[in-house]
Order: sequence, then C-alpha cells, then structure tokens
Amino acid sequence: MTTPVNRQILLAARPHGDPKPTDFDIVARPVPVPGDGQVLIRNLLVSMDPYNRIIMGNANSDQPPIDIGDPMFGFTVAVVEQSNHPVFAVGDHVASMSGWQDYALSDGSDLRSIDPTAAPLSANLGVLGMTGLTAWVGLTKIIDPKPGGTLVVTAAAGAVGSAAAQIGKLRGHRVVGIAGGPAKTRHLREDLGLDAAVDYKAADFTAQLARAVPDGIDTVYENVGATMVAALPPHLNMKAQIVVGGVMEAITATTAAPGPDRLPDLQRAVLYRDLTIRGFSVPDYFDCYDALRAELAPAVAAGTVRYAEHVVEGLEAIPTAFPDMFHGRVMGKMIAKIA
Amino acid sequence: MTTPVNRQILLAARPHGDPKPTDFDIVARPVPVPGDGQVLIRNLLVSMDPYNRIIMGNANSDQPPIDIGDPMFGFTVAVVEQSNHPVFAVGDHVASMSGWQDYALSDGSDLRSIDPTAAPLSANLGVLGMTGLTAWVGLTKIIDPKPGGTLVVTAAAGAVGSAAAQIGKLRGHRVVGIAGGPAKTRHLREDLGLDAAVDYKAADFTAQLARAVPDGIDTVYENVGATMVAALPPHLNMKAQIVVGGVMEAITATTAAPGPDRLPDLQRAVLYRDLTIRGFSVPDYFDCYDALRAELAPAVAAGTVRYAEHVVEGLEAIPTAFPDMFHGRVMGKMIAKIA
Repeated sequence: MTTPVNRQILLAARPHGDPKPTDFDIVARPVPVPGDGQVLIRNLLVSMDPYNRIIMGNANSDQPPIDIGDPMFGFTVAVVEQSNHPVFAVGDHVASMSGWQDYALSDGSDLRSIDPTAAPLSANLGVLGMTGLTAWVGLTKIIDPKPGGTLVVTAAAGAVGSAAAQIGKLRGHRVVGIAGGPAKTRHLREDLGLDAAVDYKAADFTAQLARAVPDGIDTVYENVGATMVAALPPHLNMKAQIVVGGVMEAITATTAAPGPDRLPDLQRAVLYRDLTIRGFSVPDYFDCYDALRAELAPAVAAGTVRYAEHVVEGLEAIPTAFPDMFHGRVMGKMIAKIA
Repeated sequence: MTTPVNRQILLAARPHGDPKPTDFDIVARPVPVPGDGQVLIRNLLVSMDPYNRIIMGNANSDQPPIDIGDPMFGFTVAVVEQSNHPVFAVGDHVASMSGWQDYALSDGSDLRSIDPTAAPLSANLGVLGMTGLTAWVGLTKIIDPKPGGTLVVTAAAGAVGSAAAQIGKLRGHRVVGIAGGPAKTRHLREDLGLDAAVDYKAADFTAQLARAVPDGIDTVYENVGATMVAALPPHLNMKAQIVVGGVMEAITATTAAPGPDRLPDLQRAVLYRDLTIRGFSVPDYFDCYDALRAELAPAVAAGTVRYAEHVVEGLEAIPTAFPDMFHGRVMGKMIAKIA
C-alpha cells in the first residue's frame, strides 16, 4: 500500500487571454493532519468555473488574483476522512471550497453538509451548488420576474445558464436560450425543454432571435457580455429587467473591444424602455443555499430539472480540460472526478 | 387695437442631427374660442427641452415624432383668459403642455394650477416643473440614495442636472457636478454650492474626476450618454446606483459611435461592483408633482435651491435659440418669455 499524497494544482503562470495547460503545475505534498476542531476531507469531485480563470489574473476583474505558486482555489464535493469536529463525522459528504487538490483541512466554517441520497453528488457542484445559487439568486433576488413573461438566458448551455433556464421554467416563464451551435441549441430544446433556442453562431442569429421572442423580452439572465447584450435592445419590453450573472467573454479579453461603441444603444434602451440592469455578488447570498435546495432538490430528483455535465477523469486532467471552457467546446457543468 | 392672433411654431422639416432654425415655421392663426367646459389659456413662458428635439424625429428615440406641419408640443406657464370650466377662473396661472404657441384651448385635464406667489413663475417650468420632476423622481423613486454618499450628476449645469444636483444637496448628499467649461463649473461651485465640479472638456478631466470623488461614487444621475458613463466605472463603489434621466448626446447622433466598444467595461462594472442601472418614464410619476412642490417650493423661496435660466424674449426667438441647447452654449433651463 502506497502512502497517500495530496496532489495539488498550483498556478504556475498568469495567462494572457485563454488559459493554457502550462499555466498550472501539479505537485504532490504530504496529506495534512487535522488539529483540534478540524476535519480532513478528501475531494471526490472538483468544479471548474469561470471564476478559476479570474483568480489566475489578467482577467479584467476586480477580484484580486492568487499568487504564482499558490494552490488553485475551487469548489469541491468531498468526504470527511478524519474528524476532530463536533458536527462533521467520518464518512459525511460535504461541499467545500478547498480547491483543486486531493485533501484539505477545514475548521468546518467553509463546509456544507450534503445528503448523498437527495441528488447525485455532482449536482452539489452544479444546479444545487454555487452554480445553481448564482442562477437562483439572479432570478429570485435580483430581478423580479413576472411568471409568464419571456425570459432570455444567454450562454444557456453553460453551467449557470442551464441552471437559470431550468429555474425559469420551474417558475413559469417562457424561456428562450441562446447558445452557440446546433448541438447546444438542440440540447436546450430537447433535453432542457426550453420554449425556444437561438444559435448565436448562425448567420441568421438576428432573425432567429426575433422569431423566438414574438412578444418581446421581459427578463434576461446574462452570462456573456457585450456581444449578447448588444443584440437585445430591439426586443426589450418596457420595464424589462436584465440581471448580469457573468461576463464570460470579458474574462479572457486581451484588447479593448473594437467599435462601434455599443454603449449608446444600451443607454438609450435603459432610458426609453425603463430598463433595470443589475449585478450581484453571490457570496452575499450564501445563506440562500437551503432555499435553493428546498426548491430544486426535489425537482432534480424527479427529473423535472435537468442539466448537462462535462466530466473529466482525474485531477491530472484538469490543466488540459479547463481551457476548453473558453472555446465554447463544453456543454454544461465542468467537473473533474478525482477519487 | 389689433385683433390678437395665435402664433404657432410648426415643425417644417425633420432635422438630421442638430436642429436648425429652418426646421421650424411660424404661422399666425385665429385665437380659438373655448367651448363648454373649456378654457382659453394664453402662454406666458414656453419651455425648451431636449424632448422637443426628440419629437422632431430622427432622434434615436422610441418616442414617435410629430408630423411635419404639426404644432410643436411643449410645456408652458399660462394664464387663463376665458373660462367655461368649473375649476379654472380667468386670471388663474396654470402649467400646461400646450406647446410653442400663444394661445390654446384645454378641458383642464392637462393643466396644473400654479400659485404665482409661491415661487417665480418660471420655476414652474424648471425646478418645480417637468424638469424638476425628472430630477426628483430619479433621486427619490428610482434609486435609493444613501445621504452622505457621493452623488455625481452629469450635465450638471443643464436644467435637469442642476435640479438633480440641488435636490441631492437638499437631501444630504455630497454632490459632484460634471459640466463643460470653466464658466459652468464655476457656476456649479459658486452659485449652486456643489461640493466639487469637474470640467469634462478639460485636458485633465480624468484626473479632475478622480480628485473630486476621493471616496468613490455611490450614486449617479446621468443625463448625457456613453461618453460620461464610460468615465465612471473606475470610481464606482460596490452597489453603486445609476439612474439614467437623459441621453442628451444620443439625441442628435447621426452615425454609430466609433470604437472602442465601451459596453464591455460597463458590463464588468455591473457584475463586479453589483451596480444597479435604471431608467424611468416621467409621465408614470405625474402624480408626484405635489410632493415635488411640497419639498422644493419652500427651498426655492428661501433661496436654498438655486437654478440658472437661459431666457430668450419672444416666441419668434425660439427657432434660433433652441439649437443652442445642443452645442453646450446654454446654462440652466431654456425658456422663452412670449407675453
């Protein structure tokens, strides 16, 4: 029997634009030993998120990057291996923020208990995790969607987008998803059951969008950035609400966006159509996890909320898999199964 | 004694870009005779507003234009000349939307009574009129400003901007005005008593703005458009709120704005700084005129709310005076004194 080691993925270099496999190092370190009040957790599933690119630096974000050589922060589903903690027992499943590594110590403050019988474990990284919370908060706390209106979700085949689209369906909206390419739009229609799907890579994108929103757009869950926002103003109804859950295309941008300047169009729409545009910080809503699960876990179990996953095998697969997120090659939630 | 006539300013041509004197005709028509339930009003003061350019057409607005040959719509202060109406008596002062003409009939539904002793008559077009309402609604109903925070007002020497800046001061904000040129910034500091004024035409505008908001920006009353909005993101505090009260620079734009595209910067700020950006329709708040006056009329009378006016003499001066609004040559509320 070999002595277990703690494999960690470290930031090796700050990317400019898209991340590359060589921006990461993998090292093997001793498995840490829990002290008083601590637990040792072993990560089973590791989440890959746009946020991981942001903390690498050069990502046009206000979020400070981690240092070169630091372990990559990230969300995981883990099992408790050793416990000196009154709440968490050996064998318990937890959601953690312990990062891209095999093992971690915790005093419990960053852990949430998971019921492994309530839903697939991986759902706790996706629709029942931070991803789902990002979608749920936007649709329930930031904008005030009128059920029955038309909700447009951009990057709707992505992790947050597909969660937002599903929550929108669950809450009675007519949901139109925008995604790139026929495989993704088919997934939106056939697997997720959206009312319409629009392919932004298609030559007739503008016409597709117009056909998909015959009654205009009442609410928008936006994940992409200026490219998508610029397509919306002609269709926005009076008092339409846009929640910005992400700016995917900005994260890897290395130059100022070329003209024309699309800000004036949006400003006019804000004024003339009484728009509300809002952002939010997910950590401000971490106390909503219970509400999210209460609403979604039964629907996940019943199969009325669906989601795609892009699962890779092994921690060592992450450096090569993660960059695919930024090339539109991935559908659904990106997860590495590491144990 | 000559028989009175009703001089009317008609739309003669749709401008492309800035309006020109030749876009208007002035005609003389018979003074109309009030029927049952009607009053005949004689306009004393006529308001010139960005809205007047919008209804001329080709103004990048959702608002439908008036037809060529139609009388120009507009806000006025008038006196009742004849009355078959139970509420309005001969000699009463009223605020009306009767347009750029000497006389008009009304069934009273578009009239608001004015107390000519409460404030100068012209204030009923400015800070106590539609102009003031536009400012007041934005600051009190659309955003939720935290008194004591920093409020930035763009086009702060304009009619709506100076009203917003004054209301901001009255409500305890630290108010920073942005305007073009030293005469206007001096007016903002010395006449309106703003806490700081920034000259967007100055070579060191960016540095001036940074110095003027050492604690960042909490709220923005925006009247200009993309040029101003693009300058704000570096200084916006978390959860900053932007109300869009106008898009002055867009009204006369004839081409797409050149690059770079400034929308991505704003999108990032929305997400990473939890921004709220909102527009509104002033007519939705016409029932707030009483609240506006209750708050501002005493302050106007006491001189604690001040405002600049740009008054021209005579209805016939309007076609040549109005275009100046779009060249930054005017400070404060534009009014024609026509009787």
